[in-house]
Amino acid sequence: MRKPAPTFRLDELATRFTLERHGPSDTLIHGVATLASANREQLAFLANPRYASQLANTQAGVVVLTADQARHCLVPTLVAKDPYAAFARIATLFESRPTAQPGIHPSAVVDPTAIIDPGASIGPGCVIEQGVRIERGAVIGPHGMIGPDCSIGAHSRLLANVTLVTRVHLGQRVLIHPGAVLGADGFGLAFSEEHWLKMPQLGGVKIGNDCEIGANTTIDRGTLDDTILEQDVHLDNQIQIAHNVIIGAHTAMAGCSAVAGSTHIGRYCLIGGGAGILGHLEVGDRVTITAMSLVTNNIRASGEYSSGMPLQNHHLWRRNAVRLKHLDELTRRVAALEKEKTRHE
Amino acid sequence: MRKPAPTFRLDELATRFTLERHGPSDTLIHGVATLASANREQLAFLANPRYASQLANTQAGVVVLTADQARHCLVPTLVAKDPYAAFARIATLFESRPTAQPGIHPSAVVDPTAIIDPGASIGPGCVIEQGVRIERGAVIGPHGMIGPDCSIGAHSRLLANVTLVTRVHLGQRVLIHPGAVLGADGFGLAFSEEHWLKMPQLGGVKIGNDCEIGANTTIDRGTLDDTILEQDVHLDNQIQIAHNVIIGAHTAMAGCSAVAGSTHIGRYCLIGGGAGILGHLEVGDRVTITAMSLVTNNIRASGEYSSGMPLQNHHLWRRNAVRLKHLDELTRRVAALEKEKTRHE
Amino acid sequence: MRKPAPTFRLDELATRFTLERHGPSDTLIHGVATLASANREQLAFLANPRYASQLANTQAGVVVLTADQARHCLVPTLVAKDPYAAFARIATLFESRPTAQPGIHPSAVVDPTAIIDPGASIGPGCVIEQGVRIERGAVIGPHGMIGPDCSIGAHSRLLANVTLVTRVHLGQRVLIHPGAVLGADGFGLAFSEEHWLKMPQLGGVKIGNDCEIGANTTIDRGTLDDTILEQDVHLDNQIQIAHNVIIGAHTAMAGCSAVAGSTHIGRYCLIGGGAGILGHLEVGDRVTITAMSLVTNNIRASGEYSSGMPLQNHHLWRRNAVRLKHLDELTRRVAALEKEKTRHE
Repeated sequence: MRKPAPTFRLDELATRFTLERHGPSDTLIHGVATLASANREQLAFLANPRYASQLANTQAGVVVLTADQARHCLVPTLVAKDPYAAFARIATLFESRPTAQPGIHPSAVVDPTAIIDPGASIGPGCVIEQGVRIERGAVIGPHGMIGPDCSIGAHSRLLANVTLVTRVHLGQRVLIHPGAVLGADGFGLAFSEEHWLKMPQLGGVKIGNDCEIGANTTIDRGTLDDTILEQDVHLDNQIQIAHNVIIGAHTAMAGCSAVAGSTHIGRYCLIGGGAGILGHLEVGDRVTITAMSLVTNNIRASGEYSSGMPLQNHHLWRRNAVRLKHLDELTRRVAALEKEKTRHE
Repeated sequence: MRKPAPTFRLDELATRFTLERHGPSDTLIHGVATLASANREQLAFLANPRYASQLANTQAGVVVLTADQARHCLVPTLVAKDPYAAFARIATLFESRPTAQPGIHPSAVVDPTAIIDPGASIGPGCVIEQGVRIERGAVIGPHGMIGPDCSIGAHSRLLANVTLVTRVHLGQRVLIHPGAVLGADGFGLAFSEEHWLKMPQLGGVKIGNDCEIGANTTIDRGTLDDTILEQDVHLDNQIQIAHNVIIGAHTAMAGCSAVAGSTHIGRYCLIGGGAGILGHLEVGDRVTITAMSLVTNNIRASGEYSSGMPLQNHHLWRRNAVRLKHLDELTRRVAALEKEKTRHE
Repeated sequence: MRKPAPTFRLDELATRFTLERHGPSDTLIHGVATLASANREQLAFLANPRYASQLANTQAGVVVLTADQARHCLVPTLVAKDPYAAFARIATLFESRPTAQPGIHPSAVVDPTAIIDPGASIGPGCVIEQGVRIERGAVIGPHGMIGPDCSIGAHSRLLANVTLVTRVHLGQRVLIHPGAVLGADGFGLAFSEEHWLKMPQLGGVKIGNDCEIGANTTIDRGTLDDTILEQDVHLDNQIQIAHNVIIGAHTAMAGCSAVAGSTHIGRYCLIGGGAGILGHLEVGDRVTITAMSLVTNNIRASGEYSSGMPLQNHHLWRRNAVRLKHLDELTRRVAALEKEKTRHE
């Protein structure tokens, strides 16, 4: 079932979100859009200064922006300290999510030992195995696979094709996008007698309240203890979290980043896209790692860290890259010149 | 149902693909293979000079190659300006694809509001949600999940386990490999009052005609506008395309590359494996990015661009990497030496 | 069905795994745990010296460790040359895997031409297509998709949501984690008349005995010949193996690494997380590539290889990165100074 598109008055939005209003109180808003594409019945926002030039020509009915930018705006505005956050709150009003039907779809295969709240929704083709517990308001999308001894907290939502392998415990309001795999065996191998011996993976995965896990992201179960995401951790798509990793509350990781086994990451960290963090490390709180950086040592001090060569025209890059292979030697040559100079002085 | 393996005469192939023939017109070809493994009834090709040495010993019945290389070839040949493209066209004759049964598999779960052409094929376990439109000749493989308000153009093929989450629109003849997820929420977060606020993701995804999307690749829906792939864009496996990205026609991206939010990539670009392109950038037409490069700024001029340190023996690399941490200082030391020299002259 | 948790005497473990015992023979062990979390009824291990300090306070009933470390241990011990491997063997005793029911789940869709051993287990929602062969003891988890002409060797296990597209042949005891896709089309494109022409992908995939494939990993089918993993190859999660790659026996690759088309990797190699290996290369036996390195040339000599810039504070890094763009020029300036010096001497 779909609800009709909602409508809000400008004064209603100003009051509800405690924003300063400039413009007629009865301006009607039927939706949200970007500065460039909004029409007179839509609300837009300006947060990134890159897009400030779009303000002059916007057709939006209302714009959410800072007091500074509001001075340049010819259409009605809502003034916010953080326009991005304010817009996020307003946009939620216009989100239409198909409401999931409570109950178990007849095509789902459910083990008799599973305990499923009658208010939970189990989609078509789901497989729910032994000892599973699913709380009220939880939604498991089509083809969800919930393996032995997993539990899913109230109001958590798993979209299509999510797999929880074994001993995965989700808190409340966890959101998991399609194709994510939680609780697969960690990559534990011992080399013995010229072949690999698989280390049994016996731990689980614990995901705190309000976490979000991106599409096709993988989080392995711990070897003995659990792999842990504390509350409000946000992982983008195609992230790899190895066994026994712990990620502190409120940390966010961008797409394709990866954390190797047994590393602990602090709270309020920001990990850039494609960044890699080696195993058995400690990364403190409020650490930012920029995109595609490689972390090979503990990081104790909060702050921003980077690695990665800058992009160049391929031919220039080639010349510099070749020289890089001799940088140690070059440094010694400079030291020799300096010594020589000193000797002559 | 399978068709029997097809057979072609050499003159028939020469005529059909406008290629110069050297060898008996009635040579019969039953299949295609590599230079190294082809037998007398198979056609092979030589495009990459790395493999030219295999020409002398090939057992192939026919080889497709350039006029230059043809001089060194002892077996019948078809001469082409671009042997790789010519071989691709010929090989298509020997491709046997199981023909999909039109109709809806009885195990599929289809919303009554979905409009499905009777000539389309919906495989076992598929879930088709409200407002979906599927055109003639489209094929949805097993466990396909087609979410609300998606549309699939004529003759598009989705292999097993493909998920279109919401508002994904595919053009004609689009090919999507297993495990791909299109239309999942973009990674939009606002930090407010010491926790993350999710920016609602309300846009969709538009995929142009003749695009190909690799296995386990993810393409997020836009925040407000759509994420767009223009026509004939080819994405390899495990690529991540973030919200509001636009990729121009005829661009090809190799495995594990990624594009962050709101970046626009031009037409006829080539993006190497594992390359990362940051958000809110503009990359022009006919730009080549080599493997594992990181793009942090706009690129306006066409051409080839690289970053990334060269591979070395680990111990040498270690020494150079340490020096790299002091390259700015080293540069200043050289400048000081130069100044000193000038002063003495 | 679950078995009760097993119990072992210390002398029994010592004998079974040929380990030196220090402590009462009748010490009872009910499980395994880490040094930090084990209780008196559990066995722990010490292999990584990083965790040696935990030995003093461990509450474990028994610790597996080297003779050297055993001297510092106050609780009963089992002494091993390789404690990690010894622990892996012991831990297997405490692994409780739900035993798969032999037979075909009623919701599976099986082509009549498929040959399935009666001792194999086909889970809910599986789709088994034409010409498939599944040997004794093989287990296909929920939603497994086994495409045309695939074969699965005895005692191989595919967890949930695994897709074998076409012509994929698995040896015996192969283990595949959820979301993996084997046998999708390789990324073969010819550029012709201003658009991309798809090279038909006609080969298959061959996976040797005792291989393990991680969650959401992709292995493409060959263009004409097969993509091959020899025996005992271990791939972690989210790895991309392109068409016609060959990986030698006993090689292990960590998460998010990738190998481009037609590259051959030797035996006993270790490929670090996020590493990328370009196409058409030869990498010899016993080569180690560290995390996030890029391999652009053949590697013949065994040994350890690296690339990648070291991590730094972002502001320091920025200064050095800018200088890196002029490293060739800097090297020439140093050469000029040296020449100058020589002229003056």
